[in-house]
Amino acid sequence: MDKLYVIKIGGDVIDDAQRLRSFVASFATLPGRKLLVHGGGKLATQMASQLGIQQQMVDGRRITDAETLKVVTMVYGGLINKQIVALLQAEGVNAIGLTGADANALTAHKRKAAIDYGFVGDVDEVNAKFFQLLLEQSLVPVLAPLTHDGQGQMLNTNADTIAKVVAVALSSVFDVHLVFSFNKAGVLLDSENDSSVLPELSQTMYAGMKEKNQVYAGMLPKLDNAFDALSKGVQKLTIGNAAEITNIIENKAGTKIIHG
Amino acid sequence: MDKLYVIKIGGDVIDDAQRLRSFVASFATLPGRKLLVHGGGKLATQMASQLGIQQQMVDGRRITDAETLKVVTMVYGGLINKQIVALLQAEGVNAIGLTGADANALTAHKRKAAIDYGFVGDVDEVNAKFFQLLLEQSLVPVLAPLTHDGQGQMLNTNADTIAKVVAVALSSVFDVHLVFSFNKAGVLLDSENDSSVLPELSQTMYAGMKEKNQVYAGMLPKLDNAFDALSKGVQKLTIGNAAEITNIIENKAGTKIIHG
Repeated sequence: MDKLYVIKIGGDVIDDAQRLRSFVASFATLPGRKLLVHGGGKLATQMASQLGIQQQMVDGRRITDAETLKVVTMVYGGLINKQIVALLQAEGVNAIGLTGADANALTAHKRKAAIDYGFVGDVDEVNAKFFQLLLEQSLVPVLAPLTHDGQGQMLNTNADTIAKVVAVALSSVFDVHLVFSFNKAGVLLDSENDSSVLPELSQTMYAGMKEKNQVYAGMLPKLDNAFDALSKGVQKLTIGNAAEITNIIENKAGTKIIHG
Repeated sequence: MDKLYVIKIGGDVIDDAQRLRSFVASFATLPGRKLLVHGGGKLATQMASQLGIQQQMVDGRRITDAETLKVVTMVYGGLINKQIVALLQAEGVNAIGLTGADANALTAHKRKAAIDYGFVGDVDEVNAKFFQLLLEQSLVPVLAPLTHDGQGQMLNTNADTIAKVVAVALSSVFDVHLVFSFNKAGVLLDSENDSSVLPELSQTMYAGMKEKNQVYAGMLPKLDNAFDALSKGVQKLTIGNAAEITNIIENKAGTKIIHG
């Protein structure tokens, strides 16, 4: 099977023009087929605040009301997505920006939970054939963290989750290396010390660390997504720093998530 | 050659949720291959005003400064484009939203003119092969009025012009019917009276009307684009009301732009 890199970058990279340019230049040099998923960053929050839209919070979770959905559709699907696509094009990468609505790439349903999260989507289906078509044409999909419900409604969806479901769906046709990149060197034993990075992490080790409260709370959803991806067929998975993407794909940096 | 409808809708349709839904439902019923180009509407102006961005005007023309470009990239490329795509998906049309940066669909250069229009792009090249690929997969491209310069810069580009250049580029592989739709029944002899619509208009007739000042000034760029498209190979061209799109493609409404 052909190799495919599915790389997720977080909002922190997007918020810093210099880091974004530097990441885009490194991403452009990754060999072969690749796909990028980007998060949201602080821009949407800033924009909402400038537009006088109150952020609704319930139990510490942000609610995507109708006005907030408009803002994230503009900022994630328009501004950030097209900025990244244009930068990639300048590096000679034939990028194509997409939300889940485009070509029915990602269908979702509005989350059903005790709390009403508003217009938040949980993914039902990935249009793997469409991604395959693009990748076979040497196009590089750039996914914004937005899906749709097939009934005309856009939905806000977590970027880590999008990266996971796309990687899982494509793992039957490509040899997928999924990278969750962020602003740390990987999974750290001491969250303030990048040199405490674990070279590898298995589910068993993870369970042990959780028992000893050694995992930073913010890492839990990311790691849960990671182990879920691995268990569902993603061939290789690394968590690491976006600035080290070249070293990560050469197995010289980051925390490799392993079976066991 | 297979038939292809290239339909341009203006901002007035987009600004009115009811009219937009109604247009989308009609567009969905058009047979065979089709492509939609949408304008901007008042949303970008409203958004700029809400964000406190001053509209720069020179000689009655709006200037796209850096802040305004951000707004149009968000509003045209994000909010409006994805809203239309999601609505089309709900009608069973496999739409894919694009700007000129996506898959290098439309490259442009920053306009060189006596007036500095700011980040306004004049189109250099259409990636016809990419549009062909999508159309052959029964995908329906939905184009926002944005291009890029290949150097990382997004550019604001007139939607009529985008519809024209795409229609011209695809006229060598498809039998193209280009429709410029707006809020009038077609080219009118009396701009206040929809029943004064001309069934046909040739370049000769147009020249005569211009001499007698019978053409509403706002129609001049649209008609110039129309005759340019026809002279460059577009097989058929109609100007008419977006609400009458079905009648227009059945030759029962609108003004047909003809050779001669």
